[in-house]
Amino acid sequence: AMRDAVRDALAEGPLRGRHVLVTSGPTHEPIDPVRYIANRSSGRQGHAIAAALARLGARVTLVSGPVAVPDPAGVQVVRVETAREMLQACEAALPADGAICAAAVADWRVAREAGQKLKKEPGAGAPVLEMALNPDILATLSAHGRRPRLVVGFAAETERVVEHAQAKLARKGCDWIVANDVSGDVMGGTENAVHLVSAAGVEDWPRMPKQEVAARLAQRVAEALA
Amino acid sequence: AMRDAVRDALAEGPLRGRHVLVTSGPTHEPIDPVRYIANRSSGRQGHAIAAALARLGARVTLVSGPVAVPDPAGVQVVRVETAREMLQACEAALPADGAICAAAVADWRVAREAGQKLKKEPGAGAPVLEMALNPDILATLSAHGRRPRLVVGFAAETERVVEHAQAKLARKGCDWIVANDVSGDVMGGTENAVHLVSAAGVEDWPRMPKQEVAARLAQRVAEALA
Repeated sequence: AMRDAVRDALAEGPLRGRHVLVTSGPTHEPIDPVRYIANRSSGRQGHAIAAALARLGARVTLVSGPVAVPDPAGVQVVRVETAREMLQACEAALPADGAICAAAVADWRVAREAGQKLKKEPGAGAPVLEMALNPDILATLSAHGRRPRLVVGFAAETERVVEHAQAKLARKGCDWIVANDVSGDVMGGTENAVHLVSAAGVEDWPRMPKQEVAARLAQRVAEALA
Repeated sequence: AMRDAVRDALAEGPLRGRHVLVTSGPTHEPIDPVRYIANRSSGRQGHAIAAALARLGARVTLVSGPVAVPDPAGVQVVRVETAREMLQACEAALPADGAICAAAVADWRVAREAGQKLKKEPGAGAPVLEMALNPDILATLSAHGRRPRLVVGFAAETERVVEHAQAKLARKGCDWIVANDVSGDVMGGTENAVHLVSAAGVEDWPRMPKQEVAARLAQRVAEALA
């Protein structure tokens, strides 16, 4: 807390004195000690947003799944692996003025994680992996007793992008959805074409580097938290 | 072929004129356009073996799943994602004098890969992922019409390591199994404690850096192919 206070006093920019929580990257959901379910999120967009918010003076807590991209400068990074760990880390980071949920959180985990490596038994058939629903971090933060003033979700879609994003906004109870079409090579790529969906309507942003998406979004967060 | 001949003529060392196929890394088995099943193999051991064989003069084809480790010097790298792609690349690399199958190939893939991202429908239960058996690359190469003279498999086990390796040796029809205990942090780590299992018996190698395991194994391959 002392360190945070010193940091806030030294910060400059429109988000000085604000604490913003950012999630980034994929989650890994273990099947057994060596296998897991992953997704193609690189963490590039979420990490860029954390960096952009810090540049505007915010104190940023970045809760990140396993990624290969480097930690952004001036940001407190909390590393997690599973969706359940990510939720725990997010709740531990509250209170926050804003939450930007850019991580590609696994919707499901394996219902029964095996303690030993699953063996391929000669003659036996392939296993059936029963899945269980993971906690919904975006919905949980949106309905939280200590809800951040601004809660932003992401929607990675491969079809009917804006329609799905609008439904997601209503269902989750968040303030904005940043929606993108991941049917191309966006996931893991360096550019992004997003739609900013809110109760006020839909903005279509042109395709631009993920760094620029981050800078524009951080600017909008600063205006919303002013 | 011309380039290979020139390379062989310039090479020095006990494996000069030999072609060795090495597999390395995990495979990724897609669930839908964004999700996949992975495993904790880093490719460090397989890549180190490819480099060690090249240093002994071999022409090396390295068929690698998705890894973050750099390509070894002086080695032809073929990148693949799934087990089926890995098998195809291995067969395309034949004939070879030796095959070192160090990759952690997924035993199973998802039976029906979804063309669109699986949606979490409100109120719907979690999905059940039916798995299908992947091709067995080690067994296929061991029984191949153009079988390499020396076929070496790896066995990553979390329990009864040597016992499982001996059963695997018999079942697959390969010449050696390099067996290791991955119940600790070996997968993704930089050291390895392995057992070299063959019809001749079991050698327990002390824990050592993966580079050293690679150098010792390459030396043994050179002796076997002399």
